[in-house]
Amino acid sequence: MSTAPDAADYPQTTRTTATRARQRVSYDRELVHAVLDEGYLCHLGFVRDGAPAVLPTLYAREGERLYLHGSTASRPLRAAGGPERGLPVCLTVTHVDGLVLARSAFHHSVNYRSVVVHGTARPVTDTAEKARALDLLVDHVVPGRAADCRPANARELAATAVLVLDLAEVSAKVRGGGPNDDPEDASLPHWSGVLPVRTVHGAPVPHDTERLPAPGYLTAYARG
Amino acid sequence: MSTAPDAADYPQTTRTTATRARQRVSYDRELVHAVLDEGYLCHLGFVRDGAPAVLPTLYAREGERLYLHGSTASRPLRAAGGPERGLPVCLTVTHVDGLVLARSAFHHSVNYRSVVVHGTARPVTDTAEKARALDLLVDHVVPGRAADCRPANARELAATAVLVLDLAEVSAKVRGGGPNDDPEDASLPHWSGVLPVRTVHGAPVPHDTERLPAPGYLTAYARG
Repeated sequence: MSTAPDAADYPQTTRTTATRARQRVSYDRELVHAVLDEGYLCHLGFVRDGAPAVLPTLYAREGERLYLHGSTASRPLRAAGGPERGLPVCLTVTHVDGLVLARSAFHHSVNYRSVVVHGTARPVTDTAEKARALDLLVDHVVPGRAADCRPANARELAATAVLVLDLAEVSAKVRGGGPNDDPEDASLPHWSGVLPVRTVHGAPVPHDTERLPAPGYLTAYARG
Repeated sequence: MSTAPDAADYPQTTRTTATRARQRVSYDRELVHAVLDEGYLCHLGFVRDGAPAVLPTLYAREGERLYLHGSTASRPLRAAGGPERGLPVCLTVTHVDGLVLARSAFHHSVNYRSVVVHGTARPVTDTAEKARALDLLVDHVVPGRAADCRPANARELAATAVLVLDLAEVSAKVRGGGPNDDPEDASLPHWSGVLPVRTVHGAPVPHDTERLPAPGYLTAYARG
């Protein structure tokens, strides 16, 4: 019932403090977890030769850590000078919920929920942890799938990189609701409201050689 | 009819050369433009105090340049030391098209199309160009909307930042099709195929005070 920051909040830092639209920023763990769990694709930023780089990659959450799939991270890891140093990253996940049409061009907006995580990503070197993290990644994208496929063998495990990133310096940002037009624009003859946006998953498309029926975790697939 | 790089391709550079999955990389302008035009949300990476930062923001394409909406860019611009220096950025746009389920955990994948742009973003200072860029941004998100809302006035224009980024160092990456399982896994009793993913737009939701019918460019809204 408290409104003060507590264990339910991530601590606020300089770089998780917004300079604009502060009322949209939150450090609430439940909100952060919900945004992260609804998605599976993040945009991972890192610095390479002094310049920014941003790559899309997959992630999974376990408690207060994220596991990142390493196939796109092999160059960033090398650029960071090797596994032992870790890689400073900024990981961002964004869900677009609607296009907000105001009567004035200026007040057009987008409804969205985003999470930004700052931290140092480190490679998972323990084989058992890596195998578990890969299961988590498969199950985060398609819940129930890890138990319904052949697990990675030793060769495949060795060929796969997994990074881990702690959820410590984290913020969420949410814009919802309708347009915020200036009162003097209320009578302008332009429709105002929201065009909802969402991500949908179609019917499973079997591989050429597939004779099995699609499993229930696919035919009933839904997120968020 | 030539397969050699020509004017239809962006020149390949060290940082647009993939270290993995090279067969998925393209420098084709038409492909790059198509991926950019289908989306409107990018993840903009920049360096702040030596650390990476990634923010979601809106963009619009005009020929070989992108305009970026500045509301999220005010801090990056200041961090870069002011407008005259410009801001080195990496801008990434990703569309997820499907979840690829292989019979082995290792060959699970995601079908996607992404574009990565490296360059220096610079603020648009000319008032006429800025006004035009804001129209482009509105029309890129909702085609037809710029002519059906009140244009920004001088005060609003002054309060809005727009960045421009040339499409010069650019690459696309595409993964399509079904799973690529190892032949020896073909008889495993696990369904394999693709779960299609797409972004859909719902019926327009009018603002509380709205009495006008939704315009045709919204009821028929579609991308890509």
